[in-house]
Amino acid sequence: MENWIKCCKSNNDLVLSSRIRLARNINKRPFPHMLKEDEGREIVKSVEDAFYSSSFNSESYKTNYLWERSTISNEVSLEKHLISKNLIDNSNKSAFILDKDETVSIMINEEDHVRIQCITSSLNLEEAYDFADKIDNLLEEKLDYAFDEKLGYLTACPTNIGTGMRASVMIHLPTLSLSNKLNNMLSAVTQLGMTIRGLYGEGSKGKSNIYQVSNQTTLGLSEEEIINNLKAVVIQIVNEENLCRNTLIDKYRYEIEDRIYRALGVLKSAIILNSNECLKFLSDVRLGVEMGIIKDVDKISLNNILVNTQTASIYEMYNGKLSDKETNFNRAKIVREILKNETL
Amino acid sequence: MENWIKCCKSNNDLVLSSRIRLARNINKRPFPHMLKEDEGREIVKSVEDAFYSSSFNSESYKTNYLWERSTISNEVSLEKHLISKNLIDNSNKSAFILDKDETVSIMINEEDHVRIQCITSSLNLEEAYDFADKIDNLLEEKLDYAFDEKLGYLTACPTNIGTGMRASVMIHLPTLSLSNKLNNMLSAVTQLGMTIRGLYGEGSKGKSNIYQVSNQTTLGLSEEEIINNLKAVVIQIVNEENLCRNTLIDKYRYEIEDRIYRALGVLKSAIILNSNECLKFLSDVRLGVEMGIIKDVDKISLNNILVNTQTASIYEMYNGKLSDKETNFNRAKIVREILKNETL
Repeated sequence: MENWIKCCKSNNDLVLSSRIRLARNINKRPFPHMLKEDEGREIVKSVEDAFYSSSFNSESYKTNYLWERSTISNEVSLEKHLISKNLIDNSNKSAFILDKDETVSIMINEEDHVRIQCITSSLNLEEAYDFADKIDNLLEEKLDYAFDEKLGYLTACPTNIGTGMRASVMIHLPTLSLSNKLNNMLSAVTQLGMTIRGLYGEGSKGKSNIYQVSNQTTLGLSEEEIINNLKAVVIQIVNEENLCRNTLIDKYRYEIEDRIYRALGVLKSAIILNSNECLKFLSDVRLGVEMGIIKDVDKISLNNILVNTQTASIYEMYNGKLSDKETNFNRAKIVREILKNETL
Repeated sequence: MENWIKCCKSNNDLVLSSRIRLARNINKRPFPHMLKEDEGREIVKSVEDAFYSSSFNSESYKTNYLWERSTISNEVSLEKHLISKNLIDNSNKSAFILDKDETVSIMINEEDHVRIQCITSSLNLEEAYDFADKIDNLLEEKLDYAFDEKLGYLTACPTNIGTGMRASVMIHLPTLSLSNKLNNMLSAVTQLGMTIRGLYGEGSKGKSNIYQVSNQTTLGLSEEEIINNLKAVVIQIVNEENLCRNTLIDKYRYEIEDRIYRALGVLKSAIILNSNECLKFLSDVRLGVEMGIIKDVDKISLNNILVNTQTASIYEMYNGKLSDKETNFNRAKIVREILKNETL
């Protein structure tokens, strides 16, 4: 699988990444939140043993024990969506096995004992699922999963019972977001057992205009059905977004171009950039690249900025916590550097 | 003399230009507002005759008859401060003699029969005065000026009686303007028989932060005294502005740099620019150049943008009246072109 940050096959693709997450638990053991520290670390050990002793080529994988890592390092992994808030909350007894390319993360003692997460670029849920499924099968050979013939995989939270699978897709939806059509879409999508939420930026209304569409239903449908349904919905949302863009460009070409070029102008020149502003301008520039208006910036640079200008990532780069002012100063510096160096 | 637009001796000079204007009238003839069209044109003829038949090297000079020119051409000359609103109001009987470099303009039938205007770059009132005085003397050889032994030169408006001279200096005062200190300064300056008013941008509060300091008193002081007083005040205002800049930069270096670089970023990339925005950003960039923060833009480009992005100048460049939207689009285009080509 390809890391979505470092990959861009086509500029007009609005889908950034596809993610599959499988939740699994070990039979007859309390769920993580009930585990004492030593019991939790035993689970970590047994999952590790199962993984590294399997026939899987695990050479490029490495376990990260949260209790050994700094708060900033854990926050950086959270910002990259490699781990979850829940995993950090359990950091005295949690870990994650990560591959070198950062496309696979096996979280241990998140809400469930095992959460296999595979992320790939673009709309490619099948590839992510195939990979997650392969790891799942290998682990199952060694671990005694909590499984019910009728219900399927048992999980700490009932919303995950059944397949234990959450499939999600990251999409850039600036014009749907602008036109408020996203709210109508959300209710339609909810009725289909799926949801849309903002990613990046505080609050659900992401300033980044990057949204995650994912299944809510895990029970009563096969993995294939869940993936196909989600894919169909994503394709429809992307079509709507493109329609919305075309309507806007027909009516307000200069205004949109102005917004896009100014955003790039500011990102290239600002000395201080707060997070919300950065995300907003980044979305404008991404729109420009997707629409073929901006030709000399690549999406990989934009992905890099998106991921590397989050607060913990800046702290890590500058070796420790910074004041807001210093953070905003260094954010602007990183953005200028990336746009200077990585521009085609 | 050097045209202030095309000249920049030093980047940290806050004074853009110095101007001398002498008001003169011909004896025993009604003031211009009382002249019928044919009488007015006779005055034009007699001033022209006096000028071109003098010993002055008038080769590079040309008379522009306002009644022969288009409204847009007259407006462009107004925007360049080569002529006044009053001259345009009398356009059926007014004219101006202009040199090729556009540093000397002899307006005929403005408020007074003759107004000799000399503009040079930087703080150099003496040079402008010497040139105006030379032309004045040559004209006086041929024209019978309205002059009173006690009062001096007689003018249509009593505020100009005496020397008939207005000396004025254009200065860039962004931080005094920001800090509201300009208002206090205005009252002090008024007591000294001088005034400060905004130049460029609608209303007195110029968005350009370019102000004109000029004498109000024309009676009871010699030309030399007026010039020396004005010079002293200008030097004091410039010192205050520089002090204010240093205080600000000590406290808010990054914030000021951010504002300056963003302004340049937007000017280089905008697709639509309205006049006020353009003037505001231009002032920020000029501040950057003056403070040595921006090194790859020259002031000549900034002067060119200031003068050539005014509405009538844009109309003239694009051969006719345009809608607001088209004007703002073409303004942005001109700005991008100038910053692309004329950047050092």
